[in-house]
Amino acid sequence: MSTTVVNGVNVQALLDAREVLKGAPEAAQFVWRASSKWQKGVHSTTTIQNFFGLGEEQTHKSESVFDADHPAVFAAEDNGITPIEYLLVGLASCLTAGVASVAQNRGIQLRSVESTVEGNHDIRGILGADSDVRNGFNDVKVTFTIDADASKEDIEALVAQSQKRSAVFDALTNPTNVTVEVA
Amino acid sequence: MSTTVVNGVNVQALLDAREVLKGAPEAAQFVWRASSKWQKGVHSTTTIQNFFGLGEEQTHKSESVFDADHPAVFAAEDNGITPIEYLLVGLASCLTAGVASVAQNRGIQLRSVESTVEGNHDIRGILGADSDVRNGFNDVKVTFTIDADASKEDIEALVAQSQKRSAVFDALTNPTNVTVEVA
Repeated sequence: MSTTVVNGVNVQALLDAREVLKGAPEAAQFVWRASSKWQKGVHSTTTIQNFFGLGEEQTHKSESVFDADHPAVFAAEDNGITPIEYLLVGLASCLTAGVASVAQNRGIQLRSVESTVEGNHDIRGILGADSDVRNGFNDVKVTFTIDADASKEDIEALVAQSQKRSAVFDALTNPTNVTVEVA
Repeated sequence: MSTTVVNGVNVQALLDAREVLKGAPEAAQFVWRASSKWQKGVHSTTTIQNFFGLGEEQTHKSESVFDADHPAVFAAEDNGITPIEYLLVGLASCLTAGVASVAQNRGIQLRSVESTVEGNHDIRGILGADSDVRNGFNDVKVTFTIDADASKEDIEALVAQSQKRSAVFDALTNPTNVTVEVA
């Protein structure tokens, strides 16, 4: 059935990669990289192009540059979205990619997939106004609206499987060791 | 001394906000939002413009749209960076904004702030090749190169204080509850 649906995901390549990487764990070690440069105030630009994977240097087909800043309500120039909003971009896009991949694998034709993400954030933490308030999100909610050739139950199962395999969902819901150094 | 340095951060506004929000915790409750739309394959576009804070609806001065996709090595079209790379953009920009803010507050003139971020990622997790491998990053490393009117020790203290107050550093190093629903 999966060959008759057209979601645009090459699931066979992913299934093949899974089998190959089972026997070649060193090829599965990826390093994603970003380079950031302070502009002025709290405005910075971050560039992404190269990464490492499958045992060698890789490159995206083009360089991507992202502006981050604070909005006017924080007395800044709003030259880009805030850093924490980038986490919502990553979460929404990761879960959406997962929905498309799982749908392809299960032979479900998607017509549209939309989602909204809301991150609740008590900014007293980052301002140092209350040491009992954490710096990050209090919690995050993602709501999908999906039109597909499938039952409500099958669509819910799609989303659940996407969540189970999502890199960004894991990175936000479980702790990761982050080391910060000065060169 | 802080009035003589020009890093472009309005620290007084932030210090004033801290005092005001100590007595008005409801105004400190922000909601950051993103809307995402599946395009084709694992390509999606995510839009950010509006958020809630200081008790009312707020808007960024312009709408920002972000493409996410998988690279050619995952048999995709590479129409944007991968979802997990967006976490690196958020981390670098958050820590950089913090360095600028703390420097302004401490009267340290910055000349340049650059950073590189590396996220190590064993992709056997997301591919389902090994259930003992997590989906997210194994670990992340940030390296700052800072040119400023300050000693190495003062620069290291700047970075340490930025880390201590960083929303994104907290969101990656500590767990957050994320709910995913189908409308």
